[in-house]
Amino acid sequence: MAATVVTFADMSTFAGATAVTPVADESADGGHRFAAEIHPGWDIGGNANGGYLMAIAGRAMAATVGRPPLTLTAHFLRPGPAGPCAVDVRTVRTGRRLATARATMTLDGRPTLELLGTFGEQQPAAHGPRYAREGPIDIPPYAACTSMPPSAEGPGPALMDRLACRLKPGDDGFRTGAPTGVPEIRGWFALADDEPIDAIALLLAADAFPPPVFNSDLPVAWVPTVELTVHVRGEPAPGPLRCAFRSRFIHDGLVDEEGEIWDSANSLVAQSRQLSLTPREP
Amino acid sequence: MAATVVTFADMSTFAGATAVTPVADESADGGHRFAAEIHPGWDIGGNANGGYLMAIAGRAMAATVGRPPLTLTAHFLRPGPAGPCAVDVRTVRTGRRLATARATMTLDGRPTLELLGTFGEQQPAAHGPRYAREGPIDIPPYAACTSMPPSAEGPGPALMDRLACRLKPGDDGFRTGAPTGVPEIRGWFALADDEPIDAIALLLAADAFPPPVFNSDLPVAWVPTVELTVHVRGEPAPGPLRCAFRSRFIHDGLVDEEGEIWDSANSLVAQSRQLSLTPREP
Repeated sequence: MAATVVTFADMSTFAGATAVTPVADESADGGHRFAAEIHPGWDIGGNANGGYLMAIAGRAMAATVGRPPLTLTAHFLRPGPAGPCAVDVRTVRTGRRLATARATMTLDGRPTLELLGTFGEQQPAAHGPRYAREGPIDIPPYAACTSMPPSAEGPGPALMDRLACRLKPGDDGFRTGAPTGVPEIRGWFALADDEPIDAIALLLAADAFPPPVFNSDLPVAWVPTVELTVHVRGEPAPGPLRCAFRSRFIHDGLVDEEGEIWDSANSLVAQSRQLSLTPREP
Repeated sequence: MAATVVTFADMSTFAGATAVTPVADESADGGHRFAAEIHPGWDIGGNANGGYLMAIAGRAMAATVGRPPLTLTAHFLRPGPAGPCAVDVRTVRTGRRLATARATMTLDGRPTLELLGTFGEQQPAAHGPRYAREGPIDIPPYAACTSMPPSAEGPGPALMDRLACRLKPGDDGFRTGAPTGVPEIRGWFALADDEPIDAIALLLAADAFPPPVFNSDLPVAWVPTVELTVHVRGEPAPGPLRCAFRSRFIHDGLVDEEGEIWDSANSLVAQSRQLSLTPREP
């Protein structure tokens, strides 16, 4: 296995907190096993953020096939508290440009995430058609948007201490009992200390914001994700990313959420869609 | 295994052409193996439609877990010509409402589709919040829309002989060299002979229309799907379904496609999103 895995001494970085270590070249069924650690502080109410878990597993899959994620789907089976975990990766097909792999993340031997993805380098220099139905979302500059409070000072989730996200003024209304009434949340995504955002970090970005249904009349409570798919559409230029997340259809106990993520060069760098259960008190 | 699998004598029906037969209760790794047949006539240029292949595999997965699909993702590894195939299903987790499974479809032992899905009954009677950002798409009645020509009489794909789809007048402009310029295609989906449309048939519906990029200035050629995710959002009321498919972002050799499917009772019954390679001559 040509794994290019780096472990970081500083576990407070995103790269360090999602590091994976190969523990055997061949598992029983011909796959690859990685050890990793679900770090405290990347959670909401004690359970790790789904995008953070997806980033750990996605990093193990990317290391196995030697390419970054292009499209990755995760199904969430159980909550993920802090502690050691394993990721078992199986390559499904390797082609010239694309490689497909599946993976299972387990905690204490219990499956927590099941994933399926196709991996390949971005090809921005490729000639070919370009079309965008919409331009980047229009929100105030980063400095004019609202920071999420450190968890020590308010009701913000611990995850926000690790990030440098900002919300569009108004879209944070749910935090003060004044939701906009429209299930949409826009803002800026950034890692702390200007840590660069790569394709793995885009997996976190796709699930790091508060659920847009917080701005509807639904309770501000846990929204358990069933499925999350992220399409990586480009390598982000340096700087914070503009994000828009919205729910379009809520019924029969299920809610969708779709998102677009744009970089400082006005390029779309990720699209996401998830299906979740409607919010419930824990 | 409590598989409720029916095989149909009339293979021209969708249900018959997607029938699966369990061939062993336990495969080597504790999964379930099904035999199926990729039938001729459900193809575009000799290779089976992706939604049709997904329906065969989805039926085997649904039989294994005893519930219909709620959200299913397929990664397309190779084209699927007509002939026998196998579907190996592995249950990942079974809960009270939801069950998660993965599957591999193989032709001649070569993996062709890899799938991951969560299954569960719709709960339309459940109390809970309802929200729709948009209403059903507004298109002329079924009878006023344009049928796709039988393949014997024109350039339409063989698949259209099996279906009773209709396109919104104008959105079929690509067929006569007059594309709208907007990568969007709307119309009605129906199976032939008023065969009822269930959750499995929605998987086909999500991928049965011509690619919306045919209405842009891209070549009308094969658009190889990398990944397709379908969220089943309801059990369709009887009658043809209104569908809208659009591409929003095309760059770097990749194109997205998203879709909504509405039933005769104005309920959203499915959402889809796929990531494909830009069209290429075969």
